[in-house]
Amino acid sequence: MTPRVAVLSTGSELLRGRGTDTNLATFARALETVGLEIRYHSTCGDDFGRLVDELKLAAARADLILMSGGLGPTDDDLTRSAIEEAFHRPLEFRPKLWRDIQARFKTFKISMAAINKRQAYAPQGAISLPNPNGSAPGFALKEDGVLVACLPGPPREMKPMLDDQVMPLIRRTFRLRKVWDYYEGKAIGLPEGDVDVVITKLAKKHGCAYGITAKGGVINVIAKGTPAGVSRVGRDFEKAMGANFLPAELNAVVAGELMRRKITIAVAESCTGGLVASKLTDIPGVSDVLLEAVVSYSNASKVARLGVSDSTLAEHGAVSEECAREMAEGIARTSGAAVGVATTGIAGPAGGTKEKPVGLVYHAVHYRGETRVVRRVFPGERTHVKERAATVALDLVRRTLL
Amino acid sequence: MTPRVAVLSTGSELLRGRGTDTNLATFARALETVGLEIRYHSTCGDDFGRLVDELKLAAARADLILMSGGLGPTDDDLTRSAIEEAFHRPLEFRPKLWRDIQARFKTFKISMAAINKRQAYAPQGAISLPNPNGSAPGFALKEDGVLVACLPGPPREMKPMLDDQVMPLIRRTFRLRKVWDYYEGKAIGLPEGDVDVVITKLAKKHGCAYGITAKGGVINVIAKGTPAGVSRVGRDFEKAMGANFLPAELNAVVAGELMRRKITIAVAESCTGGLVASKLTDIPGVSDVLLEAVVSYSNASKVARLGVSDSTLAEHGAVSEECAREMAEGIARTSGAAVGVATTGIAGPAGGTKEKPVGLVYHAVHYRGETRVVRRVFPGERTHVKERAATVALDLVRRTLL
Repeated sequence: MTPRVAVLSTGSELLRGRGTDTNLATFARALETVGLEIRYHSTCGDDFGRLVDELKLAAARADLILMSGGLGPTDDDLTRSAIEEAFHRPLEFRPKLWRDIQARFKTFKISMAAINKRQAYAPQGAISLPNPNGSAPGFALKEDGVLVACLPGPPREMKPMLDDQVMPLIRRTFRLRKVWDYYEGKAIGLPEGDVDVVITKLAKKHGCAYGITAKGGVINVIAKGTPAGVSRVGRDFEKAMGANFLPAELNAVVAGELMRRKITIAVAESCTGGLVASKLTDIPGVSDVLLEAVVSYSNASKVARLGVSDSTLAEHGAVSEECAREMAEGIARTSGAAVGVATTGIAGPAGGTKEKPVGLVYHAVHYRGETRVVRRVFPGERTHVKERAATVALDLVRRTLL
Repeated sequence: MTPRVAVLSTGSELLRGRGTDTNLATFARALETVGLEIRYHSTCGDDFGRLVDELKLAAARADLILMSGGLGPTDDDLTRSAIEEAFHRPLEFRPKLWRDIQARFKTFKISMAAINKRQAYAPQGAISLPNPNGSAPGFALKEDGVLVACLPGPPREMKPMLDDQVMPLIRRTFRLRKVWDYYEGKAIGLPEGDVDVVITKLAKKHGCAYGITAKGGVINVIAKGTPAGVSRVGRDFEKAMGANFLPAELNAVVAGELMRRKITIAVAESCTGGLVASKLTDIPGVSDVLLEAVVSYSNASKVARLGVSDSTLAEHGAVSEECAREMAEGIARTSGAAVGVATTGIAGPAGGTKEKPVGLVYHAVHYRGETRVVRRVFPGERTHVKERAATVALDLVRRTLL
């Protein structure tokens, strides 16, 4: 029989509207990999009696209780005492835990309050779960056939303890195999519908479930299935996407390729207003290849800084294929960079016309004597247009380097 | 007696690790304004029997049940039927609801599935809660002294219904007054500790609770108390902060002031890599005043584009007060802008020395013949240093314009 799962989140701050509970999703995803679903979930505040009641209720209707939070050293950290009370397990001092906690405080050179000694206590018969990422150890115990595991609340402490210690314990206790795994992949430059057709086919072929989301021009797919199945989905997806497959975040891929091949780049931006440069400069070490960027909002700047010709601006306007081309070539020439990338468009909300609507953007890349220009019209508000245009510009650099 | 509150979140996706429950926090904050706390919170999946059990349990231990989600038209939207079953309230067809739903679909020119008619049913004796932001109406009923309100799941539909309809209903039913209100304010350019001292004093003086958080150099304070108390905290806080008070997001304040006074600006960035320009260009209409920006990562670019002198670079280096000054003056001169703002520093993780550590940034603003330079050393990783430096640069512009 599949074990019934109850999750208890503690944290009076959750019931007071401070923050949201991300641990529930972490538990759910980990449990899913062994075919388990959460049946019951309660959020408990800092009332001792109610917490004990919730524990008893959970023990009555579930075979596995996962609890997060309430393991700190202060008076409102009630988990240890509530377990003691609900399951009649007197807290006992664990010298090993105490030594670990003292060592941790020593390493980080922080002074320890006397109350931290509370964290060295565990309910009788419980096994301790060391916490390499924080001062609060977790613990687990069996109570009348029910497995109870208590983990710390902070997600960065809770998740490694769950993955490395609690999930193996659950698998052993209930004799579960890893039935599900995940594959996550990214594609760029294709309509979401086209990617959807591919992942639907692959997921079906390899017996996986899948999901697809799009954000800022990048399409993320996720497949869920047997470890062997998702591995096949991943392999086939990367093959099917070809040049549209994105192995990491776009700015890291572009900066990484430039740095690896020692190719210099310079950026000329109009409508993206510095966002292309800012995305590139988020990557450490990019100063070796990024020579400069010019944000030419005004026509005068386009002429003076980038050498765009007055006649181009007069005949075609600043938002035109010709201007984008001259901007990319101009920034490459004036900076001495091997690659010149440019954007010019109408980010909105004002400034659009019938021929040149809000959202129209020209993207250009100059490299090795050739210049490619891509025209796109993006929907949505100003910051969205900037984001999409910066993505297309960086992707154009990526494809040019391929 | 204070009514005991139970909140039920529905949504099998929450128990399957997709998304997090933000409605719990929305309920908690609204309830707090009338002095109520959430005692019990459960997340329910799409199992009918378990949902009915949770409703009965909540009705047994609470006086007010707030529920979100499960009001859609599909088979896994169980809230209406679960209420019918738990409280013996046969669902009845409401012609008025049906007309509203039909009208809504007509307005948005979307075709309606036959199953949408389900949303026109409500439990016997329940009052309907119109949903101006979606197709799923809510409802509320009294059951043996317990008030039960069911709201839609999407936060943008749920929150207005809660604020405009459900909270007034709760106040009337339990005769509660609005006891709490909130004040939220921002300060910039002061250590968090200094702001903390001020808000602590003011909160105490006017009988309010308070919280303080800092992000990217901006300090956010929140005070909670009687409507009169928080209004006094707000007035005194703004006075105490003086020039450090920030009435809106920093980029909006700076761009707004430049636009209002028709003062042109140009940006010269080194370590912020385009982020200052990108923040400014997030604001619609800024193209009227932002002439251009130059991201001069290389020394050659600083000399060629901004007129920084070779001797300055040789004697003081690119990360120096002198270079920042020449960058700000250079961008103003070469662009013809009234204001020139510049950053130069070491964003890291590499490139630091003992004299010039990672995180060292010089910020300069040139305006009306004068140039101010501010030196700061920021902790943290690369993107954090960029963020903090861009904030200080924009704040320096703001203060110069004051």
